[in-house]
Amino acid sequence: MKSFTIYNPVKIHFGNGMLAQAGSIAKKYSDNILIVTGKNSMQKTGTLDKLVKILKESGITVTVYDGITPNPTATEIDEAAKIAKQKKVGLIIGLGGGSPLDSAKAIAVAAKGDIPVWEYLKTPANDALPIITIVSTSGTGSEVNRYSVMTNPATGEKPGFGYECMYPKEAIIDPEITSSMPPYVTAATGFDVFVHIFEAFTGKAKNEFSSAYCMQAFYLLKDNLIKAYSEPDNMQARGDMALASALAGLAIDISGVSIMHAMEHPVSGNYPNIAHGAGLAVLALESMKYNLNACKRDYILIAHHFGIKRADKSDDEYAMSLIEKTKEILTALNLNVRLKDLGVEKDKLQKIAKEAFATMGFAIDNNPAVIDEKGVLKLLENSY
Amino acid sequence: MKSFTIYNPVKIHFGNGMLAQAGSIAKKYSDNILIVTGKNSMQKTGTLDKLVKILKESGITVTVYDGITPNPTATEIDEAAKIAKQKKVGLIIGLGGGSPLDSAKAIAVAAKGDIPVWEYLKTPANDALPIITIVSTSGTGSEVNRYSVMTNPATGEKPGFGYECMYPKEAIIDPEITSSMPPYVTAATGFDVFVHIFEAFTGKAKNEFSSAYCMQAFYLLKDNLIKAYSEPDNMQARGDMALASALAGLAIDISGVSIMHAMEHPVSGNYPNIAHGAGLAVLALESMKYNLNACKRDYILIAHHFGIKRADKSDDEYAMSLIEKTKEILTALNLNVRLKDLGVEKDKLQKIAKEAFATMGFAIDNNPAVIDEKGVLKLLENSY
Repeated sequence: MKSFTIYNPVKIHFGNGMLAQAGSIAKKYSDNILIVTGKNSMQKTGTLDKLVKILKESGITVTVYDGITPNPTATEIDEAAKIAKQKKVGLIIGLGGGSPLDSAKAIAVAAKGDIPVWEYLKTPANDALPIITIVSTSGTGSEVNRYSVMTNPATGEKPGFGYECMYPKEAIIDPEITSSMPPYVTAATGFDVFVHIFEAFTGKAKNEFSSAYCMQAFYLLKDNLIKAYSEPDNMQARGDMALASALAGLAIDISGVSIMHAMEHPVSGNYPNIAHGAGLAVLALESMKYNLNACKRDYILIAHHFGIKRADKSDDEYAMSLIEKTKEILTALNLNVRLKDLGVEKDKLQKIAKEAFATMGFAIDNNPAVIDEKGVLKLLENSY
Repeated sequence: MKSFTIYNPVKIHFGNGMLAQAGSIAKKYSDNILIVTGKNSMQKTGTLDKLVKILKESGITVTVYDGITPNPTATEIDEAAKIAKQKKVGLIIGLGGGSPLDSAKAIAVAAKGDIPVWEYLKTPANDALPIITIVSTSGTGSEVNRYSVMTNPATGEKPGFGYECMYPKEAIIDPEITSSMPPYVTAATGFDVFVHIFEAFTGKAKNEFSSAYCMQAFYLLKDNLIKAYSEPDNMQARGDMALASALAGLAIDISGVSIMHAMEHPVSGNYPNIAHGAGLAVLALESMKYNLNACKRDYILIAHHFGIKRADKSDDEYAMSLIEKTKEILTALNLNVRLKDLGVEKDKLQKIAKEAFATMGFAIDNNPAVIDEKGVLKLLENSY
């Protein structure tokens, strides 16, 4: 029997219209706040203006840093942390998808210290400004866990890190905000949820707590992943995907990710225009085939939770049917393409394989089947 | 779509031999500690001595209060809180089953205030000494949630209460400790787990997070509830029941309990020799029948998770088969008796029905089907 520790102190507020509570929630921590967000969608949809108004009406002083790019860089994070220090803010609010949420956590750490944020990959952080997340995608999972991913713009390295002080104090999950996601973002972030629960449920570090979240999330995805994409105004599907994203975020907080994430981070680290979920999509099928024999029982359970009919299939056939089902999902989401279609150059595959080990070693260690650099290169080539 | 808030900051340490970590865990909070426990089992099994030794070896000053009885009274709690104040302890460790764990939380509150603990039923508490739980049964669920139940020895009232400051900081769940439970305790506390997840999964306040815990716990119970009773040395079954107890404790922390708990509290409040789980056992079948039509879909899902074959059963028949299965479980656990067999006097039923509403109204409100005092009396009479 495995020994393990479970801990997640994030207070999660879920519900349509929950954004209206942002003022009273934030005020518990500070009346001088930095909002961290990207340059586009939160402005276009009016969500940023709405949040600023809500906060100001609660008597809060608001600074906005909207310089976060997709696959955010350590440079942006250090810049925002400098502003947080100058303005002496007492709380960081991350607003948006995975990039601003991850960045908010890293900024909260860097704002309390005196070293560039990149150094926290090796130097444990014990203190951070309080963090609140307001998520706009379903998604990242970042809204409810301690993880942050950042990119070194000079090298393309894209490691993840996470310390206890980086847990958001509170998370506001308002499906109305996520309903403004365009179809491609709905598809890519929705598939990220699938990979989170797939990797947490099959990884070596799985346990009964992460599996509980995963099983519930598989159950929600089954009916809602494609529906949220094909029926953008279906608020039930949006709500269920927001719940699935949070459950998946809790699952990886406990049991981590594995090979797909290990390979995808250097892909989008080297090609920052590639959306994380789209990168995962091209790597999923080959990774699933590679791991099948190492965790066949898990594949069978997932197939069962996905409502795939067993009929008279053998164990092998039933496990394989999960991979076929995944291919169908990818096709329905218009994500069933190849690595080369995303603009990745073939001669970069070696570098990507190397970086998977250098920056995402913990995820490789968590993979159900043993794999070396040659094996990773082969998976990349097969996905090309 | 429902709105809700999820929050549980307890750090859970699970594993065989985890008790050995008690010193390093406790020392983070204080070097002057009060252990709260009962008069019997933790002494007989040597667990109390072992814990005291571990703590002392970490340089911690230890006081033991071992005056907690089954169905603990407010008098005992006030007495222990007085000792905590006199000794100026900085941490309360609850060691044992539900009674000492619940009491530890109430003592932690009372030790910070100046009013008798009973008054906290109406006066919200904002502060408590830090609490660590070390659970010896599977169980109460109290090891991982904020709830505390206490009895007024003068009136027999047995209400539950729980504030945010009452969450244990950390919970040590060591299946080796639970392996010393005698069969009757294994059966009664194991059936309490069943009722926790049954009531959290069917109650009005259910949501996707509590349901995730419940489904995983049903899955664990299916194979291990009877096994832990009939094979006391089966450590796999002990471990899985310890996990199920924790998952169930998290589930009721979110979504509460309902009619069975509402009726059982005044039963064991008036008859303190009745074990909580045994009281639940005699009330379960009638309660399940009463609620069947209000949450048939949930019964069907539970039946499915319990591995009951559907064959060509109608929805009604399949839902009913869960009640039949529960009866089989109760029989296998030797808990399938009547209220009168537990020594309850028939002329007390009216008082019990009244107190169910007076002290456990929140649980009645959570019941899937509406019920009034007359309806509760009828359930009690049918269970007599």
